[in-house]
Amino acid sequence: MEHRLPEGVQVAGVHCGLKRNPQKPDLTLIVSHRECTAAGVYTQNRVFGAPIGWNRAITPSDRVRAVVINSGNANACTGRRGQEDVRRMAQAVAQLLQCRTEQVLVLSTGIIGQFLPMEKILRGIEQAWRSLGNTVSHVERAARGMMTTDTRPKLASAHFTLDSSQEVLLCGLAKGAGMIAPNMATMLAVLLTNARLDPQQAQRLLQQAVDESFNCLSIDGHTSTSDAVLLLATGEVELEHAQERFAQSLQNLCVELAQQIADDGEGVTHVVQLDVQGCPNRQVARAVAKTVAESVLVKTAVAGADPNWGRIVSAVGYAPVQVPLDRLVLEINGVPIYAQGKPCSFDVQQVAQSMRHQRLVRIRLDFGSGEGQVRFWTTDLTEEYVRFNSQYTT
Amino acid sequence: MEHRLPEGVQVAGVHCGLKRNPQKPDLTLIVSHRECTAAGVYTQNRVFGAPIGWNRAITPSDRVRAVVINSGNANACTGRRGQEDVRRMAQAVAQLLQCRTEQVLVLSTGIIGQFLPMEKILRGIEQAWRSLGNTVSHVERAARGMMTTDTRPKLASAHFTLDSSQEVLLCGLAKGAGMIAPNMATMLAVLLTNARLDPQQAQRLLQQAVDESFNCLSIDGHTSTSDAVLLLATGEVELEHAQERFAQSLQNLCVELAQQIADDGEGVTHVVQLDVQGCPNRQVARAVAKTVAESVLVKTAVAGADPNWGRIVSAVGYAPVQVPLDRLVLEINGVPIYAQGKPCSFDVQQVAQSMRHQRLVRIRLDFGSGEGQVRFWTTDLTEEYVRFNSQYTT
Repeated sequence: MEHRLPEGVQVAGVHCGLKRNPQKPDLTLIVSHRECTAAGVYTQNRVFGAPIGWNRAITPSDRVRAVVINSGNANACTGRRGQEDVRRMAQAVAQLLQCRTEQVLVLSTGIIGQFLPMEKILRGIEQAWRSLGNTVSHVERAARGMMTTDTRPKLASAHFTLDSSQEVLLCGLAKGAGMIAPNMATMLAVLLTNARLDPQQAQRLLQQAVDESFNCLSIDGHTSTSDAVLLLATGEVELEHAQERFAQSLQNLCVELAQQIADDGEGVTHVVQLDVQGCPNRQVARAVAKTVAESVLVKTAVAGADPNWGRIVSAVGYAPVQVPLDRLVLEINGVPIYAQGKPCSFDVQQVAQSMRHQRLVRIRLDFGSGEGQVRFWTTDLTEEYVRFNSQYTT
Repeated sequence: MEHRLPEGVQVAGVHCGLKRNPQKPDLTLIVSHRECTAAGVYTQNRVFGAPIGWNRAITPSDRVRAVVINSGNANACTGRRGQEDVRRMAQAVAQLLQCRTEQVLVLSTGIIGQFLPMEKILRGIEQAWRSLGNTVSHVERAARGMMTTDTRPKLASAHFTLDSSQEVLLCGLAKGAGMIAPNMATMLAVLLTNARLDPQQAQRLLQQAVDESFNCLSIDGHTSTSDAVLLLATGEVELEHAQERFAQSLQNLCVELAQQIADDGEGVTHVVQLDVQGCPNRQVARAVAKTVAESVLVKTAVAGADPNWGRIVSAVGYAPVQVPLDRLVLEINGVPIYAQGKPCSFDVQQVAQSMRHQRLVRIRLDFGSGEGQVRFWTTDLTEEYVRFNSQYTT
């Protein structure tokens, strides 16, 4: 897929010394010549990184000019000095761009509880400034500059043409190791578009898209201190009657990035697509999905390609919601496994084979009690994940 | 420790063919010549085994005569036939004891969704009837008859002498693989005493003791369909002014059994004792403890003997309660690690060494905001656990 940036947006990813390997970018800069409408959705963890506080005070906004991102250090649990460091990062970018400090958003991901090495960061910002560009390789390096334990950059793009023959572009960069990494628990995404949006509209559209995508992805239930999704809109193209189409494109882009994050999870051998349907409402469906998706026993069963429906049904039973269970139907990879309180007669070996040979495992739970539904993603839990997360040393 | 049963109580554990290995007991019978006061605390999972429904309808009671327990099959998700099988088990015991069917409690643990092989069970009940006794070896075989993936039986006893020089006895049998086993997710305990209790009093005392013990043990957060703790009191000894002492002994007995369960968890290399203190109330302390205890990242860090405080503090941050974080102090094995929003200066290697060499890891979280506290237990999460739970095949 071709990844095109909105007109007037340039990006860079450079190595400034936060990661050991000099081949790996660790600082990303995204700048816009126009003032952008900007919206943000942030972690709900009450322990949050200093950059989260900075961005919360700024978004939604109609004059953001840049986002600066470092990986390798989350600048979280760093007290007042951490807050000052965020401001210094924004200030350094603002001086180069000749804008106000409050027009620059900041994201950090990496180890918790260590101060940022500010000389390296400030040198990195200048270096990134000199490296800006808008080619595919610039975009890819920018995505790599956000990575922690990710094995590959996450990028997605979309575009559609208006009646006026103008083209609406969307381009997203994300990071996240799927299964959360040691002290680097963060999912970050920056979404760029040339559409014209007002701040409240941007915030609403972003929140909706995040609810249907990143908020439907649970890897290990451990909410990061630094999760953030930003939307920047340059305003070049008026959406006219294509509001709905834009909303759908934005949501699809987020779903695509969420799936890339799941697929690149630490030690992941299967991605699970969990459809919970027939619930009284969407909140109930989501609560059931989250409970099943976070069951260690469900996740290890998927790792072992085991259609162990008892683990799924018993996880449903302890979800913190009331939903009638007597009409519940469970399917795995399209095969009915459990219905009306009893296991179905099915070919265990055949279902196990399909789980073994497909990376995507589809689990469907239909409660037959309403229109509420959700599509949720999770991953399996493998020995490799535990090895990775227990052999790491602080 | 000597394990003495109350006067008139006899037990047996026999092999009737539910487990493959003929050396392993799989059916346990506990009978009392006196009618006992009986109380029960059961799983909160809305999907529950047929025996749970049977027992719920009976307890609290003042005329229970027996408990029959099988391992290897949970009789859960088995519909109406499962309910009939429970009744037949109770009936078989009642005929031998010449009591009413409703005087017999039933517990089952093992695979979900398969019908009980009733011929084997009924033969097993007769065999157990002929094997009853009250020696230490009878008690141990009875405890073994409850085991699924447990590697050892769990037994605990206590006794104290009243002013009247009468002796109050307590004896508990439990099972539970700590980390929950494939389709055998169950924690069972039967507590026996010679004290006189009325049904409501027994129920209240049991609920209190369970709240401070088994309900403070979270291994993987996956609530079983069949969890049950029963208390049977023969009524031989009047407690007089020793009510409080009895309550404390009962609670200690449950704590002892809960610790044995944690220690025997699948793949466990460390047991974590988590003290959450200084909370506005006990509910808040418990919610924080449960969130930290169930974090996969905290559990893998403990497996790796890594004092990775960022994982603990960030888990606190997403606990579903409001508690001020600004005075939070975190200690691991007695060493202050994090205080007032910042990491303390501590010797990482020394703390890591202490975690590596001690099976018990002590984590203390003090919020400095009240008197609410809880002591909670969990275990580490190892590769061995994942191997065990993913290589199992339905």
